[in-house]
Amino acid sequence: MNNFEFFAPTRIIYGRGTHREIGELLKPIAKKVLLHYGGGSVKKSGVYDAVVASLEASGIEFVELGGVAPNPKLSLVLEGVALSRRENVDAVLAVGGGSAIDSSKAIALGVCLDGDLWDIYESKASVERALPVVVILTIPAAGSESSEVSVITNEKKELKIGYHSPLIRPKLSVINPELFFTLPKNQIANGIADMMSHIFERYFTNTLHVDLTDSLCEATLRTIIKNGPALVENPRDYDAWAEIGFSATIAHNDILGVGREQDWASHRIQHQLSALYDIAHGAGLAVLTPFWMKYVYKDNVNMFAQFAVKVMGVDASFRDPEAVALAGIDRLSALFRGMNLPVTLRDLGIGEENLERMAKGATGESSGKEKPIGGLKKLYWQDALAIYKMAL
Amino acid sequence: MNNFEFFAPTRIIYGRGTHREIGELLKPIAKKVLLHYGGGSVKKSGVYDAVVASLEASGIEFVELGGVAPNPKLSLVLEGVALSRRENVDAVLAVGGGSAIDSSKAIALGVCLDGDLWDIYESKASVERALPVVVILTIPAAGSESSEVSVITNEKKELKIGYHSPLIRPKLSVINPELFFTLPKNQIANGIADMMSHIFERYFTNTLHVDLTDSLCEATLRTIIKNGPALVENPRDYDAWAEIGFSATIAHNDILGVGREQDWASHRIQHQLSALYDIAHGAGLAVLTPFWMKYVYKDNVNMFAQFAVKVMGVDASFRDPEAVALAGIDRLSALFRGMNLPVTLRDLGIGEENLERMAKGATGESSGKEKPIGGLKKLYWQDALAIYKMAL
Repeated sequence: MNNFEFFAPTRIIYGRGTHREIGELLKPIAKKVLLHYGGGSVKKSGVYDAVVASLEASGIEFVELGGVAPNPKLSLVLEGVALSRRENVDAVLAVGGGSAIDSSKAIALGVCLDGDLWDIYESKASVERALPVVVILTIPAAGSESSEVSVITNEKKELKIGYHSPLIRPKLSVINPELFFTLPKNQIANGIADMMSHIFERYFTNTLHVDLTDSLCEATLRTIIKNGPALVENPRDYDAWAEIGFSATIAHNDILGVGREQDWASHRIQHQLSALYDIAHGAGLAVLTPFWMKYVYKDNVNMFAQFAVKVMGVDASFRDPEAVALAGIDRLSALFRGMNLPVTLRDLGIGEENLERMAKGATGESSGKEKPIGGLKKLYWQDALAIYKMAL
Repeated sequence: MNNFEFFAPTRIIYGRGTHREIGELLKPIAKKVLLHYGGGSVKKSGVYDAVVASLEASGIEFVELGGVAPNPKLSLVLEGVALSRRENVDAVLAVGGGSAIDSSKAIALGVCLDGDLWDIYESKASVERALPVVVILTIPAAGSESSEVSVITNEKKELKIGYHSPLIRPKLSVINPELFFTLPKNQIANGIADMMSHIFERYFTNTLHVDLTDSLCEATLRTIIKNGPALVENPRDYDAWAEIGFSATIAHNDILGVGREQDWASHRIQHQLSALYDIAHGAGLAVLTPFWMKYVYKDNVNMFAQFAVKVMGVDASFRDPEAVALAGIDRLSALFRGMNLPVTLRDLGIGEENLERMAKGATGESSGKEKPIGGLKKLYWQDALAIYKMAL
């Protein structure tokens, strides 16, 4: 086991009806908040009205800024900063999924900063404090509700950068699985692929003597596999959402990844897809992850055999670990296919045209400073290209 | 799944050599600390010297108070409060196990209080703040390094009371498994029984739709069962300690217990043993837990069959769940016996003399206000007595 630090101080309030308590929960944190959210869905679903009613009942003042879209934009963040300053808010309340939360984190930083907020994201400047960020989660999977990351897109510079800091880790996240009932089925499936990937990136490792996190990862993956597909059938299954909602949170608060070298190559090669084509992060991961596995498994057959047996339920035949490993990967592909997720690049409408460009982007080769990606197996741009080609 | 709150904000620094970083780690928290520890073992082992060297190298001033004993005493706490006030310390640094940490938490409260500290423990007064508590853990199992509990014994009143508050949850805990190498073998075995019990108390439940925490509990228990007995053989096995040390922390920070009705009857009937006889908490739990299981399993045979299969490795024969359940309990007894833990009250030198008194103490019957204990099965004093008698 490697040395590690673990710090996940977000207070989580979980369960039915909890979003209606937001006013009382905010009292020790703020007198006036910026209520920040996305499009019309929080209004259509009634969440917006319930939150506003709770804030008013508890005497929490608020100003609001909607309009957060996927890949949240710097321009809206700066609008939020100006509004928050003008109105003297003392916390940012995100109501939404990863995009609304990441945008709220950026606003919380910007309000406390004299200089240019984008300099922070480009590591050209630092910041000492941020407003508290509070979350009402309406879309699980991204894990931003308990993470210290904010990914923002600078439209003018055509850059998408993630900033990490304990300052922006949400103080409080309210997670009511009932709010997930109205998610579209393809978004549910994408989310399940995404949260599974957050665990895979931590699970697949060459680090030895990590029994505890091995088995915690396997436990969480089995829970997702048991309950996720049920939700694609029936998005109003509270019990299944209750399992999935907390699985998504611990999949990304790093309790499952402590003491292990992590991988993250699949995320890196996926980000290139999302940057070039308008496809959902989870859909890209569903396509690429099994091919990444097929490309790298020979470097650690036993790890993939363990995955096959302990996560995918393949018979534990030690006579031929490689066959066991491959059977596990096949079952994962079948699982994704069963949730109507795409399984090839062509399913996503992607052909051969940009594969080399994406491969070189994934490893930094395109900027002339290639750094191999991945922990279990180091991948150079030629490796990334081979994986894209397998996935065609 | 039940609604829940989860909040475990202790920053954990984990691994080889980490206690030598304490000075730098303390810099953002305190300029001057009370260094609080137990007997001579931290001096003999060299931990004391390493900590002092690190504090001095980082310019952290300190005053010190040793002498914490098991079942930490109010008198020493009050001495620590007076010393801390006189010396204007701004944090308490516990170096030790549960006793040193619980005593440090009490001091941290007392320093910020005008009135009588014991009133806080007796719920007769409240307190608004406490000094930060920082921990260097030298004995795992109690879980106090990330819990919000402090159990203190008032010698004059002959009372032992636990106080719960987020104010006293350690801000920072440094856990170096190398520091556990010098623990005596019986203390290691007791600790393993204790940390397993912290999970059992959360695991055994009638709450349904808790797949995630079921499987996280099972994962952690399997890790302890795989690595614990190895340590009783060889207490210098770093890899095994690394697994056990973090298992002990998550066993008691409540991540494994969220959304479930918890039990805690075994702890309640054990506390009576420790109060009347001078026996270690873990040893008492090793004796009583399997008998508690045998007494209650019929109320939820399937839960105990699942435990037998998923934790104790019993063959999953659904033809006779009761036989599976009983086989699991037998394997647990055998596991404890294999670590040279006591398995009957007579092994602890306890006869029939006080069983009724203890049973009535466990449920509150002796004070005329009986409240049944336990979540999976409600136990009255007659039930507690029956369990003690089975354990003779």
